[in-house]
Amino acid sequence: MSLRPVELEEGRVVFEGEPGEEHYNPIGVVHGGYAATLLDSALGCAVHTTLPAGVGYTSLGLEAKFVRPISRDTGRVLCEATVLYRGRRQATAEATLTAADSGKLLGHGTTTCMILGAV
Amino acid sequence: MSLRPVELEEGRVVFEGEPGEEHYNPIGVVHGGYAATLLDSALGCAVHTTLPAGVGYTSLGLEAKFVRPISRDTGRVLCEATVLYRGRRQATAEATLTAADSGKLLGHGTTTCMILGAV
Amino acid sequence: MSLRPVELEEGRVVFEGEPGEEHYNPIGVVHGGYAATLLDSALGCAVHTTLPAGVGYTSLGLEAKFVRPISRDTGRVLCEATVLYRGRRQATAEATLTAADSGKLLGHGTTTCMILGAV
Amino acid sequence: MSLRPVELEEGRVVFEGEPGEEHYNPIGVVHGGYAATLLDSALGCAVHTTLPAGVGYTSLGLEAKFVRPISRDTGRVLCEATVLYRGRRQATAEATLTAADSGKLLGHGTTTCMILGAV
Repeated sequence: MSLRPVELEEGRVVFEGEPGEEHYNPIGVVHGGYAATLLDSALGCAVHTTLPAGVGYTSLGLEAKFVRPISRDTGRVLCEATVLYRGRRQATAEATLTAADSGKLLGHGTTTCMILGAV
Repeated sequence: MSLRPVELEEGRVVFEGEPGEEHYNPIGVVHGGYAATLLDSALGCAVHTTLPAGVGYTSLGLEAKFVRPISRDTGRVLCEATVLYRGRRQATAEATLTAADSGKLLGHGTTTCMILGAV
Repeated sequence: MSLRPVELEEGRVVFEGEPGEEHYNPIGVVHGGYAATLLDSALGCAVHTTLPAGVGYTSLGLEAKFVRPISRDTGRVLCEATVLYRGRRQATAEATLTAADSGKLLGHGTTTCMILGAV
Repeated sequence: MSLRPVELEEGRVVFEGEPGEEHYNPIGVVHGGYAATLLDSALGCAVHTTLPAGVGYTSLGLEAKFVRPISRDTGRVLCEATVLYRGRRQATAEATLTAADSGKLLGHGTTTCMILGAV
Protein backbone atom coordinates (compact mmCIF):
# COMPACT_ATOMS: atom_id res chain seq x y z
CA MET A 1 0.00 0.00 0.00
CA SER A 2 3.06 2.31 0.06
CA LEU A 3 2.33 4.11 3.32
CA ARG A 4 5.17 6.37 4.44
CA PRO A 5 5.74 8.21 7.71
CA VAL A 6 6.48 11.85 6.80
CA GLU A 7 6.58 13.43 10.25
CA LEU A 8 7.52 11.83 13.54
CA GLU A 9 7.90 13.32 17.00
CA GLU A 10 7.05 12.13 20.50
CA GLY A 11 3.31 11.53 20.65
CA ARG A 12 2.56 12.61 17.09
CA VAL A 13 3.14 11.17 13.61
CA VAL A 14 1.94 11.90 10.08
CA PHE A 15 1.70 9.17 7.45
CA GLU A 16 0.94 9.67 3.78
CA GLY A 17 -0.42 7.42 1.07
CA GLU A 18 -1.79 7.65 -2.43
CA PRO A 19 -4.91 5.56 -3.05
CA GLY A 20 -5.42 4.16 -6.54
CA GLU A 21 -7.75 1.87 -8.44
CA GLU A 22 -5.99 -1.15 -6.97
CA HIS A 23 -7.64 -0.18 -3.66
CA TYR A 24 -11.16 0.01 -5.10
CA ASN A 25 -13.98 -2.09 -3.74
CA PRO A 26 -16.71 -3.56 -5.94
CA ILE A 27 -18.87 -0.43 -5.60
CA GLY A 28 -16.25 1.81 -7.21
CA VAL A 29 -14.62 3.75 -4.39
CA VAL A 30 -11.55 3.09 -2.29
CA HIS A 31 -12.13 0.27 0.21
CA GLY A 32 -12.77 1.24 3.81
CA GLY A 33 -9.92 -1.08 4.65
CA TYR A 34 -7.53 1.40 3.03
CA ALA A 35 -8.54 4.18 5.42
CA ALA A 36 -8.58 1.72 8.31
CA THR A 37 -5.06 0.55 7.51
CA LEU A 38 -3.71 4.10 7.35
CA LEU A 39 -5.45 5.04 10.60
CA ASP A 40 -4.22 1.88 12.34
CA SER A 41 -0.63 2.43 11.15
CA ALA A 42 -0.47 6.04 12.25
CA LEU A 43 -2.24 5.45 15.57
CA GLY A 44 0.02 2.57 16.56
CA CYS A 45 3.13 4.41 15.49
CA ALA A 46 2.13 7.50 17.50
CA VAL A 47 1.78 5.36 20.62
CA HIS A 48 5.14 3.73 19.83
CA THR A 49 6.90 7.11 19.89
CA THR A 50 5.97 7.53 23.55
CA LEU A 51 7.54 4.26 24.73
CA PRO A 52 11.10 3.78 25.97
CA ALA A 53 13.34 1.24 24.24
CA GLY A 54 12.44 -2.34 25.15
CA VAL A 55 8.80 -1.60 25.90
CA GLY A 56 6.29 -2.92 23.41
CA TYR A 57 2.62 -2.41 22.73
CA THR A 58 -0.25 -4.14 21.02
CA SER A 59 -3.34 -2.54 19.53
CA LEU A 60 -6.53 -3.74 21.18
CA GLY A 61 -8.76 -2.13 18.59
CA LEU A 62 -9.57 0.57 16.11
CA GLU A 63 -12.65 2.78 15.85
CA ALA A 64 -12.76 4.29 12.36
CA LYS A 65 -15.25 6.78 10.91
CA PHE A 66 -15.65 7.36 7.20
CA VAL A 67 -17.03 10.81 6.40
CA ARG A 68 -16.22 11.38 2.71
CA PRO A 69 -15.63 8.83 -0.06
CA ILE A 70 -12.04 8.34 -1.25
CA SER A 71 -11.31 7.80 -4.94
CA ARG A 72 -8.33 7.85 -7.28
CA ASP A 73 -9.08 11.55 -7.80
CA THR A 74 -8.59 12.29 -4.11
CA GLY A 75 -4.84 12.19 -4.66
CA ARG A 76 -2.37 12.08 -1.82
CA VAL A 77 -3.85 11.59 1.66
CA LEU A 78 -2.38 12.47 5.05
CA CYS A 79 -3.06 10.69 8.31
CA GLU A 80 -2.08 12.58 11.45
CA ALA A 81 -2.19 10.71 14.75
CA THR A 82 -1.80 12.15 18.25
CA VAL A 83 -1.55 10.36 21.57
CA LEU A 84 -4.25 11.46 24.01
CA TYR A 85 -3.28 9.33 27.00
CA ARG A 86 -0.23 7.27 27.82
CA GLY A 87 -0.29 5.46 31.14
CA ARG A 88 1.64 2.48 32.44
CA ARG A 89 -0.76 -0.10 31.09
CA GLN A 90 -2.74 1.53 28.28
CA ALA A 91 -2.44 4.33 25.78
CA THR A 92 -5.07 5.96 23.57
CA ALA A 93 -4.63 8.01 20.40
CA GLU A 94 -6.76 9.75 17.80
CA ALA A 95 -6.12 10.38 14.12
CA THR A 96 -7.54 12.32 11.20
CA LEU A 97 -7.33 11.37 7.53
CA THR A 98 -7.37 14.31 5.13
CA ALA A 99 -6.88 14.96 1.42
CA ALA A 100 -3.50 16.65 1.00
CA ASP A 101 -4.66 19.00 -1.76
CA SER A 102 -7.97 20.24 -0.42
CA GLY A 103 -7.40 19.72 3.27
CA LYS A 104 -10.85 18.09 3.46
CA LEU A 105 -11.50 15.58 6.21
CA LEU A 106 -12.04 12.07 4.81
CA GLY A 107 -12.24 10.09 8.04
CA HIS A 108 -10.97 9.85 11.58
CA GLY A 109 -10.34 7.25 14.22
CA THR A 110 -9.17 6.24 17.66
CA THR A 111 -7.30 3.34 19.20
CA THR A 112 -6.56 1.78 22.57
CA CYS A 113 -3.18 0.08 22.89
CA MET A 114 -1.97 -2.10 25.72
CA ILE A 115 1.56 -1.43 26.96
CA LEU A 116 3.67 -4.59 27.21
CA GLY A 117 6.49 -4.56 29.74
CA ALA A 118 7.45 -2.16 32.50
CA VAL A 119 7.33 1.53 31.58
CA MET B 1 -5.53 -9.31 -0.57
CA SER B 2 -7.46 -12.19 -2.17
CA LEU B 3 -10.57 -12.04 -0.01
CA ARG B 4 -13.32 -14.33 -1.19
CA PRO B 5 -16.96 -14.63 -0.14
CA VAL B 6 -17.58 -18.30 0.62
CA GLU B 7 -21.11 -18.17 2.02
CA LEU B 8 -23.83 -15.67 1.24
CA GLU B 9 -27.43 -15.51 2.39
CA GLU B 10 -29.78 -12.71 3.39
CA GLY B 11 -28.27 -10.97 6.40
CA ARG B 12 -25.21 -13.21 6.72
CA VAL B 13 -21.97 -13.71 4.80
CA VAL B 14 -18.68 -15.51 5.33
CA PHE B 15 -15.45 -14.29 3.73
CA GLU B 16 -12.14 -16.09 3.77
CA GLY B 17 -8.57 -14.95 3.34
CA GLU B 18 -5.07 -16.27 3.84
CA PRO B 19 -2.67 -13.82 5.46
CA GLY B 20 0.99 -14.02 4.49
CA GLU B 21 4.27 -12.21 5.05
CA GLU B 22 3.24 -9.56 2.53
CA HIS B 23 0.72 -8.40 5.15
CA TYR B 24 3.27 -8.10 7.95
CA ASN B 25 3.84 -4.84 9.79
CA PRO B 26 7.28 -3.74 10.99
CA ILE B 27 6.84 -5.54 14.33
CA GLY B 28 6.52 -8.95 12.68
CA VAL B 29 2.84 -9.85 12.78
CA VAL B 30 0.02 -9.32 10.30
CA HIS B 31 -1.04 -5.67 10.14
CA GLY B 32 -4.23 -4.70 11.97
CA GLY B 33 -5.33 -3.27 8.66
CA TYR B 34 -5.64 -6.81 7.30
CA ALA B 35 -8.18 -7.80 9.96
CA ALA B 36 -9.91 -4.43 9.57
CA THR B 37 -10.22 -4.89 5.81
CA LEU B 38 -11.69 -8.37 6.18
CA LEU B 39 -14.13 -7.19 8.85
CA ASP B 40 -15.16 -4.15 6.79
CA SER B 41 -15.68 -6.25 3.65
CA ALA B 42 -17.82 -8.87 5.34
CA LEU B 43 -19.83 -6.35 7.39
CA GLY B 44 -20.67 -4.18 4.38
CA CYS B 45 -21.52 -7.18 2.25
CA ALA B 46 -23.84 -8.60 4.93
CA VAL B 47 -25.75 -5.31 5.01
CA HIS B 48 -25.85 -5.32 1.20
CA THR B 49 -27.63 -8.70 1.17
CA THR B 50 -30.59 -7.15 3.01
CA LEU B 51 -31.20 -4.36 0.48
CA PRO B 52 -33.51 -4.52 -2.54
CA ALA B 53 -32.07 -3.83 -5.99
CA GLY B 54 -31.39 -0.15 -6.58
CA VAL B 55 -30.88 0.70 -2.93
CA GLY B 56 -27.33 1.51 -1.89
CA TYR B 57 -25.47 1.93 1.37
CA THR B 58 -22.34 3.51 2.70
CA SER B 59 -20.35 2.48 5.73
CA LEU B 60 -20.17 5.20 8.37
CA GLY B 61 -17.56 3.39 10.41
CA LEU B 62 -15.94 0.28 11.73
CA GLU B 63 -15.19 -0.74 15.31
CA ALA B 64 -12.59 -3.51 15.27
CA LYS B 65 -11.15 -5.48 18.18
CA PHE B 66 -7.94 -7.48 17.93
CA VAL B 67 -7.79 -10.30 20.46
CA ARG B 68 -5.08 -12.67 19.17
CA PRO B 69 -2.10 -11.92 16.90
CA ILE B 70 -2.31 -13.15 13.29
CA SER B 71 0.78 -14.55 11.59
CA ARG B 72 1.64 -16.54 8.49
CA ASP B 73 1.22 -19.64 10.64
CA THR B 74 -2.41 -18.80 11.38
CA GLY B 75 -3.36 -20.15 7.97
CA ARG B 76 -6.74 -19.54 6.42
CA VAL B 77 -9.04 -17.14 8.30
CA LEU B 78 -12.81 -16.86 8.17
CA CYS B 79 -14.83 -13.72 8.74
CA GLU B 80 -18.52 -14.22 9.44
CA ALA B 81 -20.76 -11.15 9.46
CA THR B 82 -24.39 -10.96 10.58
CA VAL B 83 -26.82 -8.07 10.32
CA LEU B 84 -28.24 -7.08 13.72
CA TYR B 85 -30.56 -4.26 12.63
CA ARG B 86 -31.81 -3.11 9.26
CA GLY B 87 -34.10 -0.11 9.27
CA ARG B 88 -35.05 2.38 6.58
CA ARG B 89 -32.13 4.70 7.25
CA GLN B 90 -29.45 2.71 9.01
CA ALA B 91 -28.27 -0.85 9.42
CA THR B 92 -25.84 -2.38 11.91
CA ALA B 93 -23.89 -5.63 11.71
CA GLU B 94 -21.34 -7.59 13.72
CA ALA B 95 -18.59 -9.94 12.59
CA THR B 96 -16.11 -12.42 14.00
CA LEU B 97 -12.71 -13.30 12.57
CA THR B 98 -11.52 -16.81 13.34
CA ALA B 99 -8.69 -19.15 12.35
CA ALA B 100 -10.17 -21.80 10.07
CA ASP B 101 -8.04 -24.63 11.47
CA SER B 102 -8.30 -24.07 15.20
CA GLY B 103 -11.58 -22.16 15.32
CA LYS B 104 -9.89 -19.66 17.64
CA LEU B 105 -11.25 -16.13 17.72
CA LEU B 106 -8.74 -13.61 16.33
CA GLY B 107 -10.84 -10.47 16.39
CA HIS B 108 -14.33 -9.10 15.98
CA GLY B 109 -16.06 -5.93 14.91
CA THR B 110 -19.19 -3.93 14.24
CA THR B 111 -20.36 -1.39 11.69
CA THR B 112 -23.08 1.16 11.14
CA CYS B 113 -24.14 1.69 7.52
CA MET B 114 -26.40 4.41 6.16
CA ILE B 115 -29.05 3.28 3.69
CA LEU B 116 -29.08 5.39 0.52
CA GLY B 117 -32.38 5.60 -1.35
CA ALA B 118 -35.90 4.50 -0.49
CA VAL B 119 -36.19 1.04 1.06
CA MET C 1 -31.51 3.89 37.69
CA SER C 2 -32.71 0.63 39.27
CA LEU C 3 -30.78 -1.78 37.10
CA ARG C 4 -31.03 -5.37 38.28
CA PRO C 5 -29.13 -8.50 37.21
CA VAL C 6 -31.77 -11.15 36.45
CA GLU C 7 -29.57 -13.93 35.04
CA LEU C 8 -25.96 -14.68 35.82
CA GLU C 9 -23.72 -17.52 34.69
CA GLU C 10 -20.08 -17.77 33.68
CA GLY C 11 -19.54 -15.52 30.68
CA ARG C 12 -23.14 -14.33 30.36
CA VAL C 13 -25.44 -12.02 32.30
CA VAL C 14 -28.83 -10.37 31.76
CA PHE C 15 -29.73 -7.06 33.37
CA GLU C 16 -33.12 -5.41 33.33
CA GLY C 17 -34.28 -1.85 33.76
CA GLU C 18 -37.39 0.22 33.29
CA PRO C 19 -36.82 3.60 31.66
CA GLY C 20 -39.11 6.46 32.64
CA GLU C 21 -39.53 10.17 32.10
CA GLU C 22 -36.80 10.87 34.64
CA HIS C 23 -34.37 9.51 32.02
CA TYR C 24 -35.61 11.77 29.21
CA ASN C 25 -33.31 14.14 27.41
CA PRO C 26 -34.44 17.58 26.22
CA ILE C 27 -35.65 16.20 22.87
CA GLY C 28 -38.20 13.92 24.50
CA VAL C 29 -36.79 10.41 24.39
CA VAL C 30 -34.72 8.43 26.86
CA HIS C 31 -31.14 9.69 27.03
CA GLY C 32 -28.48 7.70 25.18
CA GLY C 33 -26.69 7.61 28.51
CA TYR C 34 -29.39 5.29 29.85
CA ALA C 35 -28.69 2.65 27.19
CA ALA C 36 -24.95 3.22 27.57
CA THR C 37 -25.16 2.68 31.33
CA LEU C 38 -27.12 -0.55 30.96
CA LEU C 39 -24.73 -1.83 28.28
CA ASP C 40 -21.68 -0.88 30.36
CA SER C 41 -23.09 -2.55 33.48
CA ALA C 42 -23.95 -5.80 31.77
CA LEU C 43 -20.73 -5.97 29.73
CA GLY C 44 -18.49 -5.39 32.74
CA CYS C 45 -20.44 -7.85 34.86
CA ALA C 46 -20.21 -10.54 32.17
CA VAL C 47 -16.43 -10.16 32.10
CA HIS C 48 -16.39 -10.28 35.91
CA THR C 49 -18.09 -13.69 35.92
CA THR C 50 -15.09 -15.18 34.08
CA LEU C 51 -12.48 -14.06 36.62
CA PRO C 52 -11.27 -16.04 39.64
CA ALA C 53 -11.57 -14.49 43.09
CA GLY C 54 -8.96 -11.80 43.69
CA VAL C 55 -8.57 -10.87 40.05
CA GLY C 56 -9.98 -7.50 39.03
CA TYR C 57 -10.73 -5.74 35.79
CA THR C 58 -11.26 -2.26 34.49
CA SER C 59 -13.26 -1.23 31.44
CA LEU C 60 -11.15 0.51 28.82
CA GLY C 61 -14.12 1.59 26.77
CA LEU C 62 -17.61 1.10 25.43
CA GLU C 63 -18.85 1.12 21.85
CA ALA C 64 -22.62 1.60 21.89
CA LYS C 65 -25.06 1.64 18.97
CA PHE C 66 -28.56 3.07 19.22
CA VAL C 67 -30.93 1.57 16.68
CA ARG C 68 -34.43 2.38 17.96
CA PRO C 69 -35.58 5.22 20.24
CA ILE C 70 -36.45 4.31 23.85
CA SER C 71 -39.39 6.01 25.56
CA ARG C 72 -41.50 5.51 28.66
CA ASP C 73 -43.79 3.39 26.48
CA THR C 74 -40.98 0.94 25.73
CA GLY C 75 -41.53 -0.63 29.14
CA ARG C 76 -39.08 -3.04 30.68
CA VAL C 77 -35.78 -3.50 28.81
CA LEU C 78 -33.34 -6.40 28.93
CA CYS C 79 -29.62 -6.19 28.36
CA GLU C 80 -27.86 -9.50 27.67
CA ALA C 81 -24.07 -9.52 27.62
CA THR C 82 -21.79 -12.34 26.52
CA VAL C 83 -18.01 -12.64 26.78
CA LEU C 84 -16.38 -13.18 23.39
CA TYR C 85 -12.75 -13.42 24.49
CA ARG C 86 -11.08 -13.79 27.86
CA GLY C 87 -7.31 -13.88 27.86
CA ARG C 88 -4.76 -13.23 30.55
CA ARG C 89 -4.56 -9.51 29.92
CA GLN C 90 -7.74 -8.47 28.13
CA ALA C 91 -11.32 -9.58 27.72
CA THR C 92 -13.98 -8.49 25.23
CA ALA C 93 -17.75 -8.81 25.41
CA GLU C 94 -20.82 -7.88 23.40
CA ALA C 95 -24.35 -7.03 24.52
CA THR C 96 -27.80 -6.46 23.10
CA LEU C 97 -30.50 -4.22 24.54
CA THR C 98 -34.05 -5.30 23.76
CA ALA C 99 -37.59 -4.37 24.74
CA ALA C 100 -38.90 -7.14 27.01
CA ASP C 101 -42.45 -7.05 25.60
CA SER C 102 -41.81 -6.92 21.87
CA GLY C 103 -38.35 -8.47 21.75
CA LYS C 104 -37.29 -5.62 19.46
CA LEU C 105 -33.64 -4.67 19.39
CA LEU C 106 -33.07 -1.17 20.79
CA GLY C 107 -29.28 -1.03 20.74
CA HIS C 108 -26.14 -3.07 21.15
CA GLY C 109 -22.57 -2.63 22.21
CA THR C 110 -19.12 -4.00 22.90
CA THR C 111 -16.38 -3.47 25.46
CA THR C 112 -12.72 -4.20 26.03
CA CYS C 113 -11.68 -4.76 29.64
CA MET C 114 -8.18 -5.00 31.00
CA ILE C 115 -7.52 -7.83 33.47
CA LEU C 116 -5.79 -6.65 36.65
CA GLY C 117 -3.70 -9.21 38.48
CA ALA C 118 -2.53 -12.70 37.60
CA VAL C 119 -5.16 -14.99 36.06
CA MET D 1 -27.21 13.79 37.19
CA SER D 2 -27.08 17.62 37.17
CA LEU D 3 -25.19 18.11 33.93
CA ARG D 4 -25.00 21.74 32.85
CA PRO D 5 -23.84 23.30 29.59
CA VAL D 6 -21.33 26.01 30.51
CA GLU D 7 -20.10 27.05 27.08
CA LEU D 8 -21.94 26.90 23.78
CA GLU D 9 -20.93 28.08 20.33
CA GLU D 10 -21.40 26.72 16.81
CA GLY D 11 -19.70 23.34 16.66
CA ARG D 12 -18.39 23.32 20.23
CA VAL D 13 -19.90 22.94 23.69
CA VAL D 14 -18.64 22.37 27.22
CA PHE D 15 -20.72 20.56 29.83
CA GLU D 16 -19.86 20.23 33.51
CA GLY D 17 -20.90 17.78 36.18
CA GLU D 18 -19.93 16.79 39.68
CA PRO D 19 -19.80 13.05 40.29
CA GLY D 20 -20.66 11.79 43.77
CA GLU D 21 -21.16 8.56 45.65
CA GLU D 22 -24.64 8.23 44.17
CA HIS D 23 -22.88 7.47 40.86
CA TYR D 24 -20.67 4.73 42.29
CA ASN D 25 -20.72 1.22 40.92
CA PRO D 26 -20.33 -1.86 43.12
CA ILE D 27 -16.52 -1.79 42.80
CA GLY D 28 -16.24 1.64 44.40
CA VAL D 29 -15.60 4.10 41.59
CA VAL D 30 -17.93 6.22 39.49
CA HIS D 31 -19.87 4.11 36.98
CA GLY D 32 -18.68 4.16 33.36
CA GLY D 33 -22.24 5.14 32.53
CA TYR D 34 -21.63 8.51 34.17
CA ALA D 35 -18.78 9.34 31.79
CA ALA D 36 -20.75 7.89 28.88
CA THR D 37 -23.76 10.06 29.70
CA LEU D 38 -21.67 13.22 29.89
CA LEU D 39 -19.88 12.38 26.63
CA ASP D 40 -23.16 11.55 24.87
CA SER D 41 -24.81 14.77 26.08
CA ALA D 42 -21.97 17.02 25.00
CA LEU D 43 -21.40 15.25 21.67
CA GLY D 44 -25.06 15.41 20.66
CA CYS D 45 -25.38 19.02 21.76
CA ALA D 46 -22.29 20.02 19.77
CA VAL D 47 -23.82 18.50 16.64
CA HIS D 48 -27.10 20.27 17.42
CA THR D 49 -25.39 23.69 17.40
CA THR D 50 -24.49 23.19 13.72
CA LEU D 51 -28.06 22.55 12.53
CA PRO D 52 -30.53 25.16 11.30
CA ALA D 53 -33.90 25.48 13.03
CA GLY D 54 -36.27 22.67 12.11
CA VAL D 55 -33.55 20.15 11.35
CA GLY D 56 -33.16 17.31 13.82
CA TYR D 57 -30.60 14.63 14.50
CA THR D 58 -30.33 11.29 16.18
CA SER D 59 -27.24 9.70 17.66
CA LEU D 60 -26.32 6.42 16.00
CA GLY D 61 -23.73 5.54 18.58
CA LEU D 62 -21.08 6.45 21.08
CA GLU D 63 -17.49 5.23 21.34
CA ALA D 64 -16.21 6.01 24.83
CA LYS D 65 -12.75 5.44 26.28
CA PHE D 66 -12.06 5.43 30.01
CA VAL D 67 -8.45 6.32 30.83
CA ARG D 68 -8.47 7.29 34.53
CA PRO D 69 -10.88 6.26 37.30
CA ILE D 70 -13.38 8.90 38.49
CA SER D 71 -14.25 9.14 42.17
CA ARG D 72 -15.96 11.58 44.52
CA ASP D 73 -12.52 13.13 45.05
CA THR D 74 -12.20 13.98 41.37
CA GLY D 75 -14.45 16.96 41.93
CA ARG D 76 -16.00 18.91 39.09
CA VAL D 77 -15.51 17.44 35.61
CA LEU D 78 -15.65 19.19 32.25
CA CYS D 79 -16.69 17.60 28.97
CA GLU D 80 -15.73 19.53 25.83
CA ALA D 81 -17.17 18.35 22.53
CA THR D 82 -16.21 19.53 19.04
CA VAL D 83 -17.81 18.71 15.70
CA LEU D 84 -15.33 17.17 13.26
CA TYR D 85 -17.62 16.74 10.26
CA ARG D 86 -21.08 18.01 9.44
CA GLY D 87 -22.50 16.93 6.11
CA ARG D 88 -26.05 16.76 4.81
CA ARG D 89 -26.73 13.28 6.14
CA GLN D 90 -24.27 12.62 8.94
CA ALA D 91 -22.16 14.50 11.45
CA THR D 92 -19.32 13.30 13.67
CA ALA D 93 -17.92 14.82 16.84
CA GLU D 94 -15.27 14.10 19.45
CA ALA D 95 -15.14 14.97 23.14
CA THR D 96 -12.75 14.94 26.07
CA LEU D 97 -13.65 14.53 29.72
CA THR D 98 -11.25 16.20 32.15
CA ALA D 99 -11.00 16.95 35.86
CA ALA D 100 -11.61 20.69 36.30
CA ASP D 101 -9.06 21.10 39.09
CA SER D 102 -6.10 19.15 37.74
CA GLY D 103 -6.84 19.32 34.03
CA LYS D 104 -6.15 15.58 33.85
CA LEU D 105 -7.81 13.60 31.06
CA LEU D 106 -10.34 11.10 32.44
CA GLY D 107 -11.81 9.80 29.21
CA HIS D 108 -12.75 10.71 25.67
CA GLY D 109 -15.20 9.71 23.01
CA THR D 110 -16.70 10.10 19.55
CA THR D 111 -20.14 9.93 18.01
CA THR D 112 -21.83 9.64 14.64
CA CYS D 113 -25.20 11.38 14.33
CA MET D 114 -27.66 11.11 11.48
CA ILE D 115 -29.18 14.38 10.26
CA LEU D 116 -32.97 14.24 10.01
CA GLY D 117 -34.59 16.56 7.48
CA ALA D 118 -33.20 18.77 4.74
CA VAL D 119 -30.13 20.80 5.67
